[in-house]
Amino acid sequence: MEGIVNFSAGPSALPAPVVARIRDDLPDWNGTGSSVVELSHRAGPFMALASGLEAHLRRMLAVPESHRIVFLQGGAQMQFAAVPLNLAGEGGPACYVDTGAWSARAIAEARRYCRVHVAASSGADGYRSIPPRAVWEVPPDCAYLHYVANETIAGVEFAAEPESGGVPLVADMSSNILSRPIDVARFGVVYAGAQKNMGVSGLTVVIVREDLLDCAHPLTPTVIRYAAQAEADSMANTPCTFAWYVASLVLEWIDDEGGLDAVAERNRRKAERLYRAIDASDLYSNRIEPASRSRMNVSFELGDDALDPTFLAESERAGLVGLKGHRSLGGMRASIYNAMPVQGVERLVAFLEDFERRHG
Amino acid sequence: MEGIVNFSAGPSALPAPVVARIRDDLPDWNGTGSSVVELSHRAGPFMALASGLEAHLRRMLAVPESHRIVFLQGGAQMQFAAVPLNLAGEGGPACYVDTGAWSARAIAEARRYCRVHVAASSGADGYRSIPPRAVWEVPPDCAYLHYVANETIAGVEFAAEPESGGVPLVADMSSNILSRPIDVARFGVVYAGAQKNMGVSGLTVVIVREDLLDCAHPLTPTVIRYAAQAEADSMANTPCTFAWYVASLVLEWIDDEGGLDAVAERNRRKAERLYRAIDASDLYSNRIEPASRSRMNVSFELGDDALDPTFLAESERAGLVGLKGHRSLGGMRASIYNAMPVQGVERLVAFLEDFERRHG
Repeated sequence: MEGIVNFSAGPSALPAPVVARIRDDLPDWNGTGSSVVELSHRAGPFMALASGLEAHLRRMLAVPESHRIVFLQGGAQMQFAAVPLNLAGEGGPACYVDTGAWSARAIAEARRYCRVHVAASSGADGYRSIPPRAVWEVPPDCAYLHYVANETIAGVEFAAEPESGGVPLVADMSSNILSRPIDVARFGVVYAGAQKNMGVSGLTVVIVREDLLDCAHPLTPTVIRYAAQAEADSMANTPCTFAWYVASLVLEWIDDEGGLDAVAERNRRKAERLYRAIDASDLYSNRIEPASRSRMNVSFELGDDALDPTFLAESERAGLVGLKGHRSLGGMRASIYNAMPVQGVERLVAFLEDFERRHG
Repeated sequence: MEGIVNFSAGPSALPAPVVARIRDDLPDWNGTGSSVVELSHRAGPFMALASGLEAHLRRMLAVPESHRIVFLQGGAQMQFAAVPLNLAGEGGPACYVDTGAWSARAIAEARRYCRVHVAASSGADGYRSIPPRAVWEVPPDCAYLHYVANETIAGVEFAAEPESGGVPLVADMSSNILSRPIDVARFGVVYAGAQKNMGVSGLTVVIVREDLLDCAHPLTPTVIRYAAQAEADSMANTPCTFAWYVASLVLEWIDDEGGLDAVAERNRRKAERLYRAIDASDLYSNRIEPASRSRMNVSFELGDDALDPTFLAESERAGLVGLKGHRSLGGMRASIYNAMPVQGVERLVAFLEDFERRHG
């Protein structure tokens, strides 16, 4: 059998050269005589890695001078609390667009800290599309407008950054950061857990516009207070040094692959290939409105649910793992983040066709 | 030159067999076809690791049924906020013993959430000792009594768990957890960042008495709410899977070394050997009252500060790294956590003696 292809939704596959490099760097990283995780975060070699990581990410995403980058822990769900705590102060309301399960979780958490206004929701149609911008109700006095750039469960993605109508725009980009260029200047805050496109769990990137640093609620814990971490170069507490290290390797790999534009083009082609195969088949279907389909998480159903266990068993035997859909939705899901090679998608398409011939 | 000996205060040296195992497990962990960090935390193999880790830690520390174990992120400094948020509710006061820089930070953070009463402080004598229990003022209505079991900067450690006088006892054991057996039943909460004695940064262990789960302030973020994480088996957010994996390897290594009692005895001998060498010399001195000396972090000063750069340069050339004291205190510090072999301490003692002969 060829190697395993890992379609896990997150934590998810790393680029093979990154895994090889992690192995090669053990037990002696960069001539330090230790592995990277055994060094103090304040030791010279790690400080160099840290500042290199910040500079590299700033260059790759063209983060303007007006924005700070901080590296935190706790993933997007820590940010579901940190965003209202940092930005809504004791005022509000905060405004949210509801396009799926992660939006709903972000909204539920925000309601604990401030008044929340839902600008628009696609919940009524089962989260099959992004509500058109024209129908959003965004109060002009709201503290910020939050959306989830890609919903991993159903596989729904904003094709472009929405207009915020003058209020700070906040995006959870956990599942599509670094999958294509973005215009950071348009955002108040961009945040993302690293475990899909930037490495491993334990690192959350927060890019925050400088003028938003001083609005925090007094009960915001110091280690998630953006101003405190910006001031401390993200070392107000001991960082998850392994996740920072892996992120630095992932950024190098993106450069080696031709940079963000090249990776974005490959992602576009991978998703197109897979949706085309699903749309062309009589057995598989994808329920998301085409313009809102995710390039990162491609969900599909088999015409007959009773076939699901057979599909999963056979795909696993073929070396295609992690295809089971999220437990809340059922069906199948192929997560095809940056690290998924074109070849992995081709193997899945070949399997889909073969399975349909035999069971369709 | 023999290998490097890493005296870093944290993140710090891992046991050599653990580093070797991490390398061997790349790129295919346990026949999954992926490295452990590429698997979903909800995938079967990782869920097995997670429940094994909880069970192993429970067995090793003899955690009673009355206590839950949760695994969080953000280190002890996240807990400096999480403890008052979870335990003081909107009441208080919280009571703290001040025995060093980490105590002071915990107190400063707690003051943001509740009234704080300082039961006793050794600040006036420069944190050279633990204030005797008899002089502590613990209000009987306080929400909890907090202390830092080991202060890494000066190197001050509680020789045994103090009496709490009937209020929930809370200890930051970040720098001495698993260095010796403890009586968990005596605690309301024990917490510890993993990056000294339990592996790598990105994991914080919190052991909490079940009846304290329901006192949280309403503004406690879900991912640091003990009750929410206990309910979710510590997966209310995506955990730092690498740190959980390394912790599981460290616990196996402790078993291989003969268990907690054997490790504790070795730690006692290592510290005794080093303090004896310091006390016997005319060049080096340790300023901590003997009964309060840390077995984990041994600080020492050279009679003449001007010798410090020479000492650091020569020790580094001898393969002894990470000996520079914390920037707030100066001098030298040897951190000799569980992973430090007796041989590492012997090499340091030999170097100390040789350096003194040449420069004393």
